[in-house]
Amino acid sequence: MRIGIEHGSGGIETWNLLEKLVLSKLPPHLRKVLDGFGTDVLDDGAYLGSSTKIVLTMDSYTVNPLRFPGGSLGTLAACGTINDLVVMGARPLAAMDSIVVAEGMEIDEVDTIVKDMIDVFARYGIALIGGDLKVMPRNSLDSMIITVAGIGVAKHVVRDSVREGDKIIVTGPIAEHGAVILAAQLGMLDQVKDLRSDVKPLIDTLLPVIEEYGSYVHAARDPTRGGLAVTLNEWVRGTDLTIVIDRSAIPIREEVKNFLDALGIDPLTVACEGVAVLAVDPRVAEEIVEELRKRGERMATIVGEVKKFSNPVAHGKVVAITEVGGRTIVEPRALNLPRIC
Amino acid sequence: MRIGIEHGSGGIETWNLLEKLVLSKLPPHLRKVLDGFGTDVLDDGAYLGSSTKIVLTMDSYTVNPLRFPGGSLGTLAACGTINDLVVMGARPLAAMDSIVVAEGMEIDEVDTIVKDMIDVFARYGIALIGGDLKVMPRNSLDSMIITVAGIGVAKHVVRDSVREGDKIIVTGPIAEHGAVILAAQLGMLDQVKDLRSDVKPLIDTLLPVIEEYGSYVHAARDPTRGGLAVTLNEWVRGTDLTIVIDRSAIPIREEVKNFLDALGIDPLTVACEGVAVLAVDPRVAEEIVEELRKRGERMATIVGEVKKFSNPVAHGKVVAITEVGGRTIVEPRALNLPRIC
Repeated sequence: MRIGIEHGSGGIETWNLLEKLVLSKLPPHLRKVLDGFGTDVLDDGAYLGSSTKIVLTMDSYTVNPLRFPGGSLGTLAACGTINDLVVMGARPLAAMDSIVVAEGMEIDEVDTIVKDMIDVFARYGIALIGGDLKVMPRNSLDSMIITVAGIGVAKHVVRDSVREGDKIIVTGPIAEHGAVILAAQLGMLDQVKDLRSDVKPLIDTLLPVIEEYGSYVHAARDPTRGGLAVTLNEWVRGTDLTIVIDRSAIPIREEVKNFLDALGIDPLTVACEGVAVLAVDPRVAEEIVEELRKRGERMATIVGEVKKFSNPVAHGKVVAITEVGGRTIVEPRALNLPRIC
Repeated sequence: MRIGIEHGSGGIETWNLLEKLVLSKLPPHLRKVLDGFGTDVLDDGAYLGSSTKIVLTMDSYTVNPLRFPGGSLGTLAACGTINDLVVMGARPLAAMDSIVVAEGMEIDEVDTIVKDMIDVFARYGIALIGGDLKVMPRNSLDSMIITVAGIGVAKHVVRDSVREGDKIIVTGPIAEHGAVILAAQLGMLDQVKDLRSDVKPLIDTLLPVIEEYGSYVHAARDPTRGGLAVTLNEWVRGTDLTIVIDRSAIPIREEVKNFLDALGIDPLTVACEGVAVLAVDPRVAEEIVEELRKRGERMATIVGEVKKFSNPVAHGKVVAITEVGGRTIVEPRALNLPRIC
């Protein structure tokens, strides 16, 4: 069955499609949170009930192709939302989704993607408390966009604010997601069978560490679009600080490195979807790495630190120490991959 | 200047574009709410600070054409978000937006649309605390989609739950927005110059009334996509109740009625963007109409009521009394207009 314009009418066809795509997959206890209400009432909003230290996040997801080794647009939307909350120190509680689909798409295809998303949310007990479905004509949109707002509750909210002396920690091997999407778009998946997206939620591994170390974690981010290059630059731009990273310390799988090297692409600019980067108080940096490893992030490691140089040329910049000991500026420019995350 | 794929990179071009499109328009006090933080920190989430009875809403907006008599996609996104909160009884506090634009769009065009949105939010002191910008290739998307999550705080949350005896109130003349979009899509704007979208926020007129009458308001909704037909059906479907409305009582401007009549379209199925429909306790219905009129909704009026019939054929249905006294079922099927709201 294909998506028709009538599925976007807001009326009975929309309800039926929402029932099939979303509600039929949601156990009743995941339709609301606390004492509020959500998708158990079919209206345009959700009521959270009373709570404190609420953290919100929002992102639109679109990817070409919609399915890729390791996941799909649905996995990406769920994990991306979860990780955006986790890096702020928040335990994901609920989400709202807005799905925009092209007229003519196979409903089965949309269905499996929505299933991927809800499966991830359900595995972690995250409620889906509201949402929307819109259909656009085929000449206006060719596939599917999922926008998700995530709601979480935090003990300690991480406000990205790095300080001199902070150690930079990367939780796992970088550039995996971007590399596989790039390979798919170039029609090279057959040649590079060992590439696979790292898309995964960081609830079990990273969140307990942030909760435990609280204010010792000065910044945390999932370096998706734009990779490490963009995230690290965001942390220092406009300040008199410099982040110095050691390229040889950054974890990256050999297959990923070789694939990107062959194309002349810097892995620092390539998206991760299951990795976080942290700036932490140097007194607890080693401990945090140990904790992350114990919880399953076995390649977590310190890759650099935050410095204050007297030369203003370095202020607000990210500097990489190359494999041969040279220093280069890492620009906040990403691999311009269409629709990577 | 046109949107380029590099504007979607997440790096410096994206920051510059966000600065131009969004941040430059936002006064500092509208970048966060309460004691939390929002767009004053450039990350992927927002922290609300502590608060109670928080109401959330989310919707994707797309319309063809992007500008129309009475407003634009930006006006629509802001007013739609505000009204979704207001009909739940919530005072809008903050919003997060996710903008997806097609590569090649004029940045000036995107800019004026974002300005329309932020102008509405700013007029009511609503903060924009987070968001996202994505660019899709031209062959995948032809214009622009804005998804907005709205956050509000409510004294009394309206949970749509109609009861036997409730009076149905419409706050203003219906079908104005849908009619003008239809005219635009049919290339008829020159012929029907008196059509104009009713898009507007209901904060000053409806919200104080809901706040004042609290639990006497059993349901409230802005009948956008799908019009009154879909909203009223949503309220009774699956129950043993029937909503009976009097067609001759429903406010509609002569020009709108004539235009839709000529096309054979039922105004009940056509979108409004500045009108709400309420189901209220009959003991306060007249009072509420008076309050609404005093606050500027001068055409607010009672158009029907909720009944319980013994004949199960009528259960869960909306019945209209026609101008000649007959009875017809109003189906929850909307005018299938592409991208109306």
